[in-house]
Amino acid sequence: MTTPFAKTPPPPYYAVIFSSQRTEGEQGYGAMADRMVELAAQQPGFLGIESTRDEHGFGITVSYFDTLEHIAAWKAHAEHLQAQALGHRVWYQHFELRIAKVERAYSKTSR
Amino acid sequence: MTTPFAKTPPPPYYAVIFSSQRTEGEQGYGAMADRMVELAAQQPGFLGIESTRDEHGFGITVSYFDTLEHIAAWKAHAEHLQAQALGHRVWYQHFELRIAKVERAYSKTSR
Repeated sequence: MTTPFAKTPPPPYYAVIFSSQRTEGEQGYGAMADRMVELAAQQPGFLGIESTRDEHGFGITVSYFDTLEHIAAWKAHAEHLQAQALGHRVWYQHFELRIAKVERAYSKTSR
Repeated sequence: MTTPFAKTPPPPYYAVIFSSQRTEGEQGYGAMADRMVELAAQQPGFLGIESTRDEHGFGITVSYFDTLEHIAAWKAHAEHLQAQALGHRVWYQHFELRIAKVERAYSKTSR
Protein backbone atom coordinates (compact mmCIF):
# COMPACT_ATOMS: atom_id res chain seq x y z
CA MET A 1 0.00 0.00 0.00
CA THR A 2 1.27 3.45 -0.89
CA THR A 3 1.28 6.27 1.65
CA PRO A 4 -1.66 8.69 1.63
CA PHE A 5 0.73 11.58 2.35
CA ALA A 6 2.17 13.90 -0.29
CA LYS A 7 5.96 14.15 -0.30
CA THR A 8 6.26 17.86 -0.87
CA PRO A 9 9.47 19.91 -1.08
CA PRO A 10 10.26 22.69 1.39
CA PRO A 11 7.87 25.68 1.04
CA PRO A 12 6.93 27.83 -0.70
CA TYR A 13 4.56 25.98 -3.05
CA TYR A 14 0.82 25.99 -3.65
CA ALA A 15 -2.08 23.95 -2.27
CA VAL A 16 -5.42 23.51 -4.02
CA ILE A 17 -7.87 22.69 -1.24
CA PHE A 18 -11.03 21.07 -2.61
CA SER A 19 -13.79 20.30 -0.08
CA SER A 20 -16.84 18.54 -1.45
CA GLN A 21 -20.09 16.87 -0.54
CA ARG A 22 -20.95 13.98 -2.87
CA THR A 23 -24.43 13.40 -4.17
CA GLU A 24 -26.04 10.00 -3.58
CA GLY A 25 -25.04 7.14 -5.88
CA GLU A 26 -21.82 6.17 -7.59
CA GLN A 27 -22.61 7.35 -11.15
CA GLY A 28 -19.09 6.69 -12.42
CA TYR A 29 -17.46 8.83 -9.77
CA GLY A 30 -14.80 6.40 -8.53
CA ALA A 31 -13.32 5.67 -11.95
CA MET A 32 -13.19 9.36 -12.85
CA ALA A 33 -11.67 10.30 -9.49
CA ASP A 34 -8.93 7.67 -9.97
CA ARG A 35 -8.30 8.88 -13.50
CA MET A 36 -8.02 12.51 -12.36
CA VAL A 37 -5.44 11.60 -9.70
CA GLU A 38 -3.46 9.68 -12.35
CA LEU A 39 -3.71 12.60 -14.80
CA ALA A 40 -2.91 15.26 -12.19
CA ALA A 41 0.29 13.39 -11.32
CA GLN A 42 1.44 13.78 -14.94
CA GLN A 43 1.02 17.55 -15.02
CA PRO A 44 3.98 19.94 -15.01
CA GLY A 45 4.62 21.27 -11.54
CA PHE A 46 2.56 18.61 -9.73
CA LEU A 47 4.04 17.94 -6.28
CA GLY A 48 1.59 15.53 -4.67
CA ILE A 49 -1.98 14.92 -3.56
CA GLU A 50 -3.79 13.94 -0.35
CA SER A 51 -7.42 12.88 -0.43
CA THR A 52 -9.99 11.47 1.97
CA ARG A 53 -13.77 11.15 2.21
CA ASP A 54 -15.89 10.06 5.15
CA GLU A 55 -18.97 7.82 5.38
CA HIS A 56 -21.26 10.84 4.98
CA GLY A 57 -19.77 11.66 1.57
CA PHE A 58 -17.84 14.71 2.75
CA GLY A 59 -14.35 14.79 1.32
CA ILE A 60 -11.25 16.93 1.21
CA THR A 61 -8.62 16.65 -1.50
CA VAL A 62 -5.50 18.79 -1.37
CA SER A 63 -3.26 18.82 -4.42
CA TYR A 64 0.09 20.54 -4.41
CA PHE A 65 1.75 22.41 -7.28
CA ASP A 66 4.83 24.54 -7.68
CA THR A 67 3.20 27.63 -9.24
CA LEU A 68 -0.17 29.29 -9.87
CA GLU A 69 0.53 29.01 -13.60
CA HIS A 70 0.74 25.22 -13.38
CA ILE A 71 -2.49 25.14 -11.36
CA ALA A 72 -4.18 27.21 -14.06
CA ALA A 73 -2.86 24.88 -16.77
CA TRP A 74 -4.19 21.81 -14.94
CA LYS A 75 -7.57 23.50 -14.44
CA ALA A 76 -7.73 24.12 -18.22
CA HIS A 77 -6.70 20.55 -19.23
CA ALA A 78 -9.33 19.20 -21.67
CA GLU A 79 -10.03 15.92 -19.85
CA HIS A 80 -10.07 17.70 -16.50
CA LEU A 81 -12.58 20.23 -17.86
CA GLN A 82 -14.91 17.36 -18.77
CA ALA A 83 -14.57 15.95 -15.26
CA GLN A 84 -15.21 19.37 -13.73
CA ALA A 85 -18.42 19.73 -15.77
CA LEU A 86 -19.65 16.34 -14.56
CA GLY A 87 -18.63 17.23 -11.03
CA HIS A 88 -20.75 20.38 -11.13
CA ARG A 89 -23.71 18.60 -12.69
CA VAL A 90 -23.70 15.09 -11.24
CA TRP A 91 -21.24 14.24 -8.46
CA TYR A 92 -21.08 17.17 -6.08
CA GLN A 93 -23.93 18.64 -4.11
CA HIS A 94 -21.64 21.44 -2.99
CA PHE A 95 -17.95 22.21 -3.10
CA GLU A 96 -15.45 24.83 -2.00
CA LEU A 97 -12.17 25.34 -3.83
CA ARG A 98 -9.38 27.38 -2.28
CA ILE A 99 -5.95 28.13 -3.68
CA ALA A 100 -3.34 28.82 -1.05
CA LYS A 101 0.39 29.44 -0.86
CA VAL A 102 2.06 27.08 1.60
CA GLU A 103 4.49 29.07 3.71
CA ARG A 104 5.44 26.61 6.46
CA ALA A 105 5.35 22.84 6.85
CA TYR A 106 6.06 20.32 9.61
CA SER A 107 5.74 16.57 9.83
CA LYS A 108 5.98 13.88 12.47
CA THR A 109 6.18 10.11 12.53
CA SER A 110 5.58 8.34 15.84
CA ARG A 111 7.73 5.54 17.21
CA MET B 1 -27.24 18.54 10.84
CA THR B 2 -24.79 21.39 10.41
CA THR B 3 -22.86 21.87 7.20
CA PRO B 4 -19.34 20.40 7.00
CA PHE B 5 -18.19 23.46 5.04
CA ALA B 6 -16.45 26.47 6.56
CA LYS B 7 -18.10 29.80 5.81
CA THR B 8 -14.97 31.82 5.19
CA PRO B 9 -14.78 35.50 4.20
CA PRO B 10 -13.23 36.62 0.91
CA PRO B 11 -9.44 35.96 0.77
CA PRO B 12 -6.82 36.60 1.93
CA TYR B 13 -6.84 34.50 5.11
CA TYR B 14 -4.89 31.48 6.33
CA ALA B 15 -5.44 27.72 6.17
CA VAL B 16 -3.87 25.20 8.54
CA ILE B 17 -3.86 21.93 6.61
CA PHE B 18 -3.46 18.96 8.95
CA SER B 19 -3.22 15.51 7.31
CA SER B 20 -2.98 12.57 9.66
CA GLN B 21 -2.96 8.81 9.89
CA ARG B 22 -4.61 7.55 13.08
CA THR B 23 -3.16 4.72 15.10
CA GLU B 24 -5.39 1.70 15.85
CA GLY B 25 -7.90 2.02 18.68
CA GLU B 26 -10.00 4.87 19.99
CA GLN B 27 -7.97 5.77 23.12
CA GLY B 28 -10.04 8.86 23.89
CA TYR B 29 -9.48 10.38 20.48
CA GLY B 30 -13.08 11.25 19.55
CA ALA B 31 -13.82 13.21 22.71
CA MET B 32 -10.57 15.17 22.44
CA ALA B 33 -11.10 15.88 18.73
CA ASP B 34 -14.60 17.22 19.46
CA ARG B 35 -13.25 19.34 22.30
CA MET B 36 -10.50 20.78 20.10
CA VAL B 37 -13.01 21.81 17.42
CA GLU B 38 -15.14 23.47 20.10
CA LEU B 39 -12.12 25.23 21.59
CA ALA B 40 -10.68 26.28 18.21
CA ALA B 41 -14.01 27.94 17.37
CA GLN B 42 -13.61 30.17 20.44
CA GLN B 43 -10.17 31.46 19.47
CA PRO B 44 -9.58 35.00 18.23
CA GLY B 45 -9.37 35.08 14.45
CA PHE B 46 -10.96 31.64 13.91
CA LEU B 47 -12.86 31.59 10.61
CA GLY B 48 -14.00 27.98 10.28
CA ILE B 49 -12.97 24.34 10.05
CA GLU B 50 -13.48 21.42 7.66
CA SER B 51 -12.60 17.89 8.71
CA THR B 52 -12.96 14.39 7.34
CA ARG B 53 -11.44 10.94 7.88
CA ASP B 54 -11.86 7.78 5.83
CA GLU B 55 -12.32 4.15 6.87
CA HIS B 56 -8.54 3.59 6.74
CA GLY B 57 -7.96 6.25 9.41
CA PHE B 58 -6.50 8.82 7.05
CA GLY B 59 -7.90 12.28 7.74
CA ILE B 60 -7.56 15.86 6.64
CA THR B 61 -8.60 18.81 8.80
CA VAL B 62 -8.32 22.33 7.47
CA SER B 63 -8.86 25.18 9.92
CA TYR B 64 -9.03 28.77 8.80
CA PHE B 65 -7.75 31.83 10.64
CA ASP B 66 -7.37 35.49 9.82
CA THR B 67 -3.67 35.91 10.65
CA LEU B 68 -0.48 33.93 11.36
CA GLU B 69 -0.40 35.52 14.81
CA HIS B 70 -3.77 34.01 15.69
CA ILE B 71 -2.62 30.61 14.40
CA ALA B 72 0.47 30.86 16.64
CA ALA B 73 -1.69 31.80 19.63
CA TRP B 74 -3.99 28.80 19.06
CA LYS B 75 -0.98 26.51 18.70
CA ALA B 76 0.30 27.76 22.09
CA HIS B 77 -3.07 27.41 23.91
CA ALA B 78 -2.50 25.30 27.06
CA GLU B 79 -5.28 22.76 26.48
CA HIS B 80 -4.34 22.50 22.81
CA LEU B 81 -0.70 21.83 23.78
CA GLN B 82 -1.84 18.88 25.91
CA ALA B 83 -3.84 17.53 22.97
CA GLN B 84 -0.87 17.99 20.64
CA ALA B 85 1.37 16.02 23.02
CA LEU B 86 -1.14 13.15 23.12
CA GLY B 87 -1.51 13.36 19.35
CA HIS B 88 2.24 12.93 18.89
CA ARG B 89 2.43 10.09 21.41
CA VAL B 90 -0.82 8.17 21.10
CA TRP B 91 -3.25 9.08 18.32
CA TYR B 92 -1.26 9.74 15.16
CA GLN B 93 1.04 7.36 13.40
CA HIS B 94 2.11 10.17 11.11
CA PHE B 95 0.98 13.68 10.31
CA GLU B 96 1.80 16.61 8.05
CA LEU B 97 0.97 20.18 9.02
CA ARG B 98 1.07 22.96 6.46
CA ILE B 99 0.27 26.63 6.93
CA ALA B 100 -0.89 28.38 3.79
CA LYS B 101 -2.22 31.75 2.76
CA VAL B 102 -5.49 31.44 0.86
CA GLU B 103 -5.36 33.73 -2.14
CA ARG B 104 -8.41 32.67 -4.17
CA ALA B 105 -11.65 30.87 -3.37
CA TYR B 106 -14.64 29.58 -5.34
CA SER B 107 -17.73 27.63 -4.37
CA LYS B 108 -20.61 25.93 -6.08
CA THR B 109 -23.94 24.45 -5.05
CA SER B 110 -25.72 22.21 -7.54
CA ARG B 111 -29.42 22.43 -8.38
